[in-house]
Amino acid sequence: MKKIVLVYSGGLDTSVCIPLVREEYGFDHVITVTVDVGQPEEDIRQAEERARRLGAEHYTIDAKQLFVEYFCWPAVRANGDYEGYPLSTSIARPLIALKAVEKARELGATAFGHGCTGKGNDQFRIEYILRTLMPEAEIIAPMREGRRLPDGRREPWTRSEEIDYANAHGLDIPQTKERIWSVDENLWGRSIEGGRLEEPDYAPPEEIFKWTRGPGNCLPTPQTITIEFEQGVPVALDGQRLDPVSLVTTLNRIAGQHGVGRIDIMEDRMLGLKVRENYECPAAVTLLTAHRALEALVCTQGELKFKAMVDREWGELAYKGLWFDPLKEDLEAFIARVQERVNGVVHLRLFQGTASVIGRNSPNALYSADLASFDSKTFDQSESLGIVKTHGLQSRMYFHLRQSGRLTGQPVPPALLGASVPKPTTQETPS
Amino acid sequence: MKKIVLVYSGGLDTSVCIPLVREEYGFDHVITVTVDVGQPEEDIRQAEERARRLGAEHYTIDAKQLFVEYFCWPAVRANGDYEGYPLSTSIARPLIALKAVEKARELGATAFGHGCTGKGNDQFRIEYILRTLMPEAEIIAPMREGRRLPDGRREPWTRSEEIDYANAHGLDIPQTKERIWSVDENLWGRSIEGGRLEEPDYAPPEEIFKWTRGPGNCLPTPQTITIEFEQGVPVALDGQRLDPVSLVTTLNRIAGQHGVGRIDIMEDRMLGLKVRENYECPAAVTLLTAHRALEALVCTQGELKFKAMVDREWGELAYKGLWFDPLKEDLEAFIARVQERVNGVVHLRLFQGTASVIGRNSPNALYSADLASFDSKTFDQSESLGIVKTHGLQSRMYFHLRQSGRLTGQPVPPALLGASVPKPTTQETPS
Amino acid sequence: MKKIVLVYSGGLDTSVCIPLVREEYGFDHVITVTVDVGQPEEDIRQAEERARRLGAEHYTIDAKQLFVEYFCWPAVRANGDYEGYPLSTSIARPLIALKAVEKARELGATAFGHGCTGKGNDQFRIEYILRTLMPEAEIIAPMREGRRLPDGRREPWTRSEEIDYANAHGLDIPQTKERIWSVDENLWGRSIEGGRLEEPDYAPPEEIFKWTRGPGNCLPTPQTITIEFEQGVPVALDGQRLDPVSLVTTLNRIAGQHGVGRIDIMEDRMLGLKVRENYECPAAVTLLTAHRALEALVCTQGELKFKAMVDREWGELAYKGLWFDPLKEDLEAFIARVQERVNGVVHLRLFQGTASVIGRNSPNALYSADLASFDSKTFDQSESLGIVKTHGLQSRMYFHLRQSGRLTGQPVPPALLGASVPKPTTQETPS
Amino acid sequence: MKKIVLVYSGGLDTSVCIPLVREEYGFDHVITVTVDVGQPEEDIRQAEERARRLGAEHYTIDAKQLFVEYFCWPAVRANGDYEGYPLSTSIARPLIALKAVEKARELGATAFGHGCTGKGNDQFRIEYILRTLMPEAEIIAPMREGRRLPDGRREPWTRSEEIDYANAHGLDIPQTKERIWSVDENLWGRSIEGGRLEEPDYAPPEEIFKWTRGPGNCLPTPQTITIEFEQGVPVALDGQRLDPVSLVTTLNRIAGQHGVGRIDIMEDRMLGLKVRENYECPAAVTLLTAHRALEALVCTQGELKFKAMVDREWGELAYKGLWFDPLKEDLEAFIARVQERVNGVVHLRLFQGTASVIGRNSPNALYSADLASFDSKTFDQSESLGIVKTHGLQSRMYFHLRQSGRLTGQPVPPALLGASVPKPTTQETPS
Repeated sequence: MKKIVLVYSGGLDTSVCIPLVREEYGFDHVITVTVDVGQPEEDIRQAEERARRLGAEHYTIDAKQLFVEYFCWPAVRANGDYEGYPLSTSIARPLIALKAVEKARELGATAFGHGCTGKGNDQFRIEYILRTLMPEAEIIAPMREGRRLPDGRREPWTRSEEIDYANAHGLDIPQTKERIWSVDENLWGRSIEGGRLEEPDYAPPEEIFKWTRGPGNCLPTPQTITIEFEQGVPVALDGQRLDPVSLVTTLNRIAGQHGVGRIDIMEDRMLGLKVRENYECPAAVTLLTAHRALEALVCTQGELKFKAMVDREWGELAYKGLWFDPLKEDLEAFIARVQERVNGVVHLRLFQGTASVIGRNSPNALYSADLASFDSKTFDQSESLGIVKTHGLQSRMYFHLRQSGRLTGQPVPPALLGASVPKPTTQETPS
Repeated sequence: MKKIVLVYSGGLDTSVCIPLVREEYGFDHVITVTVDVGQPEEDIRQAEERARRLGAEHYTIDAKQLFVEYFCWPAVRANGDYEGYPLSTSIARPLIALKAVEKARELGATAFGHGCTGKGNDQFRIEYILRTLMPEAEIIAPMREGRRLPDGRREPWTRSEEIDYANAHGLDIPQTKERIWSVDENLWGRSIEGGRLEEPDYAPPEEIFKWTRGPGNCLPTPQTITIEFEQGVPVALDGQRLDPVSLVTTLNRIAGQHGVGRIDIMEDRMLGLKVRENYECPAAVTLLTAHRALEALVCTQGELKFKAMVDREWGELAYKGLWFDPLKEDLEAFIARVQERVNGVVHLRLFQGTASVIGRNSPNALYSADLASFDSKTFDQSESLGIVKTHGLQSRMYFHLRQSGRLTGQPVPPALLGASVPKPTTQETPS
Repeated sequence: MKKIVLVYSGGLDTSVCIPLVREEYGFDHVITVTVDVGQPEEDIRQAEERARRLGAEHYTIDAKQLFVEYFCWPAVRANGDYEGYPLSTSIARPLIALKAVEKARELGATAFGHGCTGKGNDQFRIEYILRTLMPEAEIIAPMREGRRLPDGRREPWTRSEEIDYANAHGLDIPQTKERIWSVDENLWGRSIEGGRLEEPDYAPPEEIFKWTRGPGNCLPTPQTITIEFEQGVPVALDGQRLDPVSLVTTLNRIAGQHGVGRIDIMEDRMLGLKVRENYECPAAVTLLTAHRALEALVCTQGELKFKAMVDREWGELAYKGLWFDPLKEDLEAFIARVQERVNGVVHLRLFQGTASVIGRNSPNALYSADLASFDSKTFDQSESLGIVKTHGLQSRMYFHLRQSGRLTGQPVPPALLGASVPKPTTQETPS
Repeated sequence: MKKIVLVYSGGLDTSVCIPLVREEYGFDHVITVTVDVGQPEEDIRQAEERARRLGAEHYTIDAKQLFVEYFCWPAVRANGDYEGYPLSTSIARPLIALKAVEKARELGATAFGHGCTGKGNDQFRIEYILRTLMPEAEIIAPMREGRRLPDGRREPWTRSEEIDYANAHGLDIPQTKERIWSVDENLWGRSIEGGRLEEPDYAPPEEIFKWTRGPGNCLPTPQTITIEFEQGVPVALDGQRLDPVSLVTTLNRIAGQHGVGRIDIMEDRMLGLKVRENYECPAAVTLLTAHRALEALVCTQGELKFKAMVDREWGELAYKGLWFDPLKEDLEAFIARVQERVNGVVHLRLFQGTASVIGRNSPNALYSADLASFDSKTFDQSESLGIVKTHGLQSRMYFHLRQSGRLTGQPVPPALLGASVPKPTTQETPS
């Protein structure tokens, strides 16, 4: 009895895979696994029903809490971002694949199927986990391989062909035109892509958004919220401690009502294609904004500068789905050390599409009212003379060289310094 | 006849310096230079009048166009930023100092005075230019040196003492309490700091803002604008070519009416102090947002990642005022190469505090509708199998090591993978 | 008449390709192109003869000068390195492919063949150029595709099968065992790999080296040489201006006699495999050592730090063969700006495997004997007090936090500070 | 009774400080602390004797083991380097200052003195520790402040004046000319600087070296050694476990006999001066070479690239003496994560000034003989076609743009591609 675990969303592509792995790949026992990371309940129900009608052994696994704790929170600590995208879909894929592996082990399956095409990022993220955890397993990607033609060649499935095939196997999907866009949704965000939305210059219509209100439709008055962090992890909203899922869910609702979290970017996919993407991520954007503000209060200037590079690298690894990469672990050790101090509260005003930080407070602030204030007499200002005199010392030595005529080009554009700079008459060194 | 050029804003500090450099430092000829980089006309007039009343030879130099062309435009090309701050004051200081040098040369002065204290950043920025261009000149900083006491020691001036001293020399400034905050203003932005504003957790009152409307007070309908760039430089607004100053001025007005450009950050000053800062920079924020969006369309993923480091370094040098640093020139050579392609238009929607990119277009887009679209059959998807199979190869070899028990720690948190990961039974290498 | 240009080294693999592209791929006109970048003359002659015997239209193109000027010199300016490897083979591949394209255009061919396998780096480097310059051309890689079996499947060729096949088509190669290692050689270096040499822990036998003398066999007395650079490019040796090829050839000989240039590293190939590599690159190692020393004299500390990142990125792009990548061009703009000042001479002592810098001199040195010397009285040392007092200000504020007990862990290991650090009794801020 | 702890080397500068802090600074109880980090025993004895003769309460503290364990080993793990310098003096200073603090606490002193001038780096390193651990303490730096003239002004001490002053207080130092160079020595290395050695172009005379044999004087036969690492820390030499101090001492001797460890660089000091420096660090250079080779075997390509940045930052912080900086701790958390796997052995051949890696072995090697070898049939080479086809995709799209004539400049230098590149005739996208 050849068993296969199919990573299953309940959508058309993965539904087509159920009969396909039976008929073309010779699996007589198809186990469908739908991992709940916060997608609409209706999608979960549809998956259950379609799997049942197509004769699969179906499992729905609630992984919402794991998703927030083990994937969203680390993303917050790393200011998780890739080219402006808070990685919502990216960080859910490893968890989905992990749960598929768990189920395969439990049920003794040694093959996996998924519905990813060969153009996108998800094939990398999902297969990385499968190949890492079960390197010996067989992996089937029917959508990537394409429809088998009578002559043995393969070509990509059309939507119409998929519907015909699915309905021939027991579903009842109307032959409508292809949906104009496709959606992926989890607690950390909602992505809408495809069709004209891919064009860099096409203003997205209001109707693609579901979680965020648009201009003119937001709540009419500003709302100030307070987020508390412990070690870089959000723990409370407006003074009330919330479990991770509730915190994210609540914030998605509140910030969404104020239109916060819309993102419109060009994104470089893993295969090198540039695609225009639209996201709405109210909770993610609000939490990341707050977290960055708190870090700016407790970290040194050097830490902020270097952590920006650490975070960027983390974001790239997370985007690629390399969840167990040793470099990711190394970066997280750096991040964990910094986050030890990222405790405190951030106040934000949500209004009309913006989450604005209006205050921040931490027991670990590297801030001294005394030193910073204008009025202080504690710092002997005249001592800064030596600092000023050495400021840019090498830079000034270089300028002397430029002025000396040994290097090409004007040292200063003439418009900026009407009189030409005279050559130095002495050998004096700048001091 | 000992001549000194005083970098002069017309404020209390620099006004005090006029009689001070005469009485304490022995200069009998004080030349005041006020450089117009877009500050309020009233400030310019006040400077002229005070200088006259205090007996200085006064010059006002209009440098607005130089400021935008030679300082703001390079900042746009470098996505000019330091910890969230678009560098408005920072990039004006070198120009002000350059014009002071120009005037000194013209009039044969070999000494400079300025009103910077010993705690801030401006002393570094201004003196770097003076020491670079006229290394032999004497530099006087009376506010930094402090008020001379009868016993020869020095201590910082209080506002009240400054007013008394200034009035004793011909001004007529009322003895009010110290202003609650201090303002610096030029075409690239407006900073408001001091007093309670320095506290990280103090919500700034609406009254500190002058250029941007606040929540509830913005224009009631969204406005879509189009900005055109040539080689990374903004050249037209809504299809109309504008000279640099007009473009910035117009955009400050338009974006300000929509509340765009408020910035509230913790900032690390050069001496290591962390200070909370409030800025309003409507034009700068709008142009930087648009420029980044255009770069995301025309640059490769590798360029975007590396240029982020280049830009950050540029921002730090600009913040420090090291305008002629060789590294800054090197970075600008990199930037210039990239900007050659940064031509095109960006559409933004201004509304309620946000400038949202809603479209971008460039003849140099690294975007191919054909490849990016879902429907395309041009890319043979099955060819991605090899890519997927090598994805994270070293990462998977590492995971095998972890699983082997040679390294400490769980390879996967048990919560994520219920059944413990079995040790590999074969020596098989991941492929 | 179907024409194909075959990138031809004269080795077994590429020789097998000549009859193969005729018999299996249907090309009736095979043009072989051997590009001379400094490989042994005997290899060039062998290529000519084998091509003739196998019935190809053969061209040998002397590209030695182009190679040094357009590939080695830019590598010097970028301190060209990838994980310790001076990129010798890597930077020759684009030139070889360029010359193949040139010949194809001249002769009207629209297909290319090469003998690279599917495991190495060269397939990427060569095809990148072909696909960039003639995207419409057909590309055949018979060794990567493998030997066609009767049942239609393919498998890698064995050496024995290759010899049989080649001899059956007119060559006369003895059936010896596979050579223990394979060699690639050009003016910039010689690589020896394969067999036991791939093992990380195998001490390479002396016989694999041809250009460098081994321990105990080097010239018995040290030799001091002087290299002059103009804009980062080597132009003279011991005061004598040499054309690029002569300079490299001479230096390979001289430095090789002193055993300079052996490199033994683990290298990460593009597909993710780690391989142990042995190189000998006498001229490259000597010139890179000298160039770095000159940069250390003329660049600011900031430039040196940032250029290290620029160089590393350049090295990675060059390793990958992305010769026309826009990021590479951007980095080269940065590099060119720096190199403007990299003029001067470097003195090195060659002896027993080492090229030691013993002196450097430049008109553009950022060095001032006056300031640097111990004896100088020009720098008022007491002025450094202010600098010392602000040194690590944030770092010290952080330490106070650690000491306060709010953070976990010992602020100082007890072994380092016997008495435990007392908690601060005052609220005093470090100054 | 005013007590002061003087950081004491026994040299002329610090010896002068003993009477000076009594006579000019009013301390009647001078405690001298000499911390033994491996300097010559003769220096230790001289310090004891001079302190006694000058009436100080003297302590010698043996900190050799602490130095290696807490300072040298972390430097190895971080590949500790600043511009080619293995940080030998830099990393000893914090320990010396820590022991001074320890003694001050024990004896109830609240003031510190040191003999650093105002031009060097050590004032920063030592005072950072003092100001961090005892922010309330008074710090005296008589050499930096200079000799008090009758008129109250101060000027730097001359050597001759120092000798007169010291002898007048009980020492018996002959009035010789200033020593031509000054030496600092500890287990991690020996630095020789000053006089003509500061000139970039002066070949250092053989006599300045003490630990390393010069060309022509090294042991006549190569010696192969094996170093074993556990978690990045050297633990055994040639199979024999050694305590840290013995390992370093032994290696200094062995490698020194082979002339290994001489370093001749231009170095950027903290105040911005560039100085030529000569070091000899046989153990440090050997261990760092070995450690890097082992990391290259066990780390992924991504880790090696990123850790290079981490290490460089660590080196800069260590150079500046910011031993307790939070960024340093963060970087060390990253490093510790990586080092967990840095176990294994490295074989090096020491000969005539070079330590050459000739083999490395680790249970954690990311190396698979199977995959790496040429002969393997495990990797299906034809699968790399997809990888090759997507290699440099954006890069090729960019090249199309260049060729289209929209961008300036030749896409390919004519010398490299004789026939000019024809404009693309189709709209075809590279694939």
